[in-house]
Amino acid sequence: MKIAVDGMGGDFAPEEIVKGAVAGAREYGVEIALVGPEERMRQELAGHDCSGTVIEVVNASQWLVEGEHPGFALRQKRDASIVVATKLVKVRKADAVISAGPTGGVVAAALVILGTLEGMSRPVVGGPFLGFAPNTIMMDLGSNVDCQPHQLLDFAIVGTVYARRMLGIKDPSVALLSIGAEEGKGNEQVRETYPLLQKCGLNFIGQVEGYDIASGRANVIICDGFVGNIVVKFGETLGKTIGRWLEDRIAGRLPESEVREIVADLVLATNAADARGGGPLWAVDGVACVSHGRSRAEEIARTIGQARLAVEQDLVGALKTELAAARRKLGMPDM
Amino acid sequence: MKIAVDGMGGDFAPEEIVKGAVAGAREYGVEIALVGPEERMRQELAGHDCSGTVIEVVNASQWLVEGEHPGFALRQKRDASIVVATKLVKVRKADAVISAGPTGGVVAAALVILGTLEGMSRPVVGGPFLGFAPNTIMMDLGSNVDCQPHQLLDFAIVGTVYARRMLGIKDPSVALLSIGAEEGKGNEQVRETYPLLQKCGLNFIGQVEGYDIASGRANVIICDGFVGNIVVKFGETLGKTIGRWLEDRIAGRLPESEVREIVADLVLATNAADARGGGPLWAVDGVACVSHGRSRAEEIARTIGQARLAVEQDLVGALKTELAAARRKLGMPDM
Repeated sequence: MKIAVDGMGGDFAPEEIVKGAVAGAREYGVEIALVGPEERMRQELAGHDCSGTVIEVVNASQWLVEGEHPGFALRQKRDASIVVATKLVKVRKADAVISAGPTGGVVAAALVILGTLEGMSRPVVGGPFLGFAPNTIMMDLGSNVDCQPHQLLDFAIVGTVYARRMLGIKDPSVALLSIGAEEGKGNEQVRETYPLLQKCGLNFIGQVEGYDIASGRANVIICDGFVGNIVVKFGETLGKTIGRWLEDRIAGRLPESEVREIVADLVLATNAADARGGGPLWAVDGVACVSHGRSRAEEIARTIGQARLAVEQDLVGALKTELAAARRKLGMPDM
Repeated sequence: MKIAVDGMGGDFAPEEIVKGAVAGAREYGVEIALVGPEERMRQELAGHDCSGTVIEVVNASQWLVEGEHPGFALRQKRDASIVVATKLVKVRKADAVISAGPTGGVVAAALVILGTLEGMSRPVVGGPFLGFAPNTIMMDLGSNVDCQPHQLLDFAIVGTVYARRMLGIKDPSVALLSIGAEEGKGNEQVRETYPLLQKCGLNFIGQVEGYDIASGRANVIICDGFVGNIVVKFGETLGKTIGRWLEDRIAGRLPESEVREIVADLVLATNAADARGGGPLWAVDGVACVSHGRSRAEEIARTIGQARLAVEQDLVGALKTELAAARRKLGMPDM
């Protein structure tokens, strides 16, 4: 298996990316296509022990930077590292691509070069985001706002495939996020989506409210990307805020190293996406994993692990099968 | 000043309600009209030292119970304690009403008996909800879902009056909750509301994202009640979840009483609405304060304090003035 790594994407590129690529190659036993300016990539590689790994350098003379308009940047920079890396997947020279570059650019490259699965217009992002509820996935987390009911249904299918293939949960329970548990409580979007979820053949357990997000009651919690994005960001900051408060409260009462450890564990548990490394962009016709911009070598290596798992588990094929099955159940035309 | 207290509303009615009414009367120097079955109210009062307080019993032979359909219950139970108590405000025999009864019933009674301010169709609920950001109010928290832009504008006005009159903040900053700080990032509702907020004469500072809810960046955060309800409930449970985790982590390392105190403070800081007691139902043409169903005497007393503040600060009058001013700025017809 070969993973294409965007060597120039991320706040700490290329140093940390190359370091992570070497670590990932060794840890997960995959070949790497390291994409970026050839000279620079080779210089970075020279600083590491690459024995026992297969790392090929693929030249790309340009790269995206944070703040550029994604569409515009892609048209201007046809030899950008993310473009070259994603094309390797398209022409089957690599099985997956990973990048810590600007999310908009990575998404745009995936959309333009790989395309989306039929019937889905935008990538779906999500995953477990709380260490306290490691088997709970929320989708979407910001890629899709102003969603139609059929999009929320798609998130439920994506989430089910995610939970089954990436988390090993046999029959993932799916719930619709709302302001009350009873059917009928919620907004128009929720009321219109409910009957679709009832009939689609997934393990739909009804509505859950904000109280249930951290409780692990459902494996897959479905919401509009507007709501999901706000909830996840709020939870991350609340964890950090509580961490700072706690540090003040227990400093001097416990050994310093213990205080640091407790606070770090708390922040990690409320920022679980950081801990996991990047995840796949769902609904894309190929495996493309995005890691956050501030990723260091460790996260890059973990993202390579996620990409390997996604390829092994044939996420794209599984998702196509599930989408078709749900649409048949609902009497929707095959796409 | 006289506050009508629904003596039969709440999980611990009438015992805790009556106890709280006596405490509130003494603490805040207000007269109380205690509404409920006369005999039962007098029996409860007999168990307390009422010296130095003015507490009048007003008979009501019925009361609402949790789980009833609010509208139906109000039609069936015309002598319900919440109805009788709210009517005291309508006929100016009391300055405010407070209840820990079923929220739907309290809201319905306020709507039917007191009515809403012109141009507003439903009560607005909200207030500070995080101890870490005591000067940040979020509105709406669940009463209004599927909001139009003009409703979000109304929340901004309500929030500004709340922050000014109840929290003593001179020029409260107002922000629109979205998925990014830049104008244009967000859903259709946000994009349509943005220009209204820019022109309405409030201290509008733009959009904030989930990261900013706990940071205190804005005094008034505006959102659809669907989003607000989910965020607040998530924060409350996350606080409790972290509390339990922390207890396990530090138990045995610190004296038991300190562990208990730290965890209790954490839960309180993430469940600040509990700490504050009930708050006013905004947009209602009169002062009606709802406390949660599990309120004990202490919360009932605090809610009486909130009601007194609301009356003293002439919330209803201030809100009418602010609404008219904002509508004039926007060139909307006077209501």
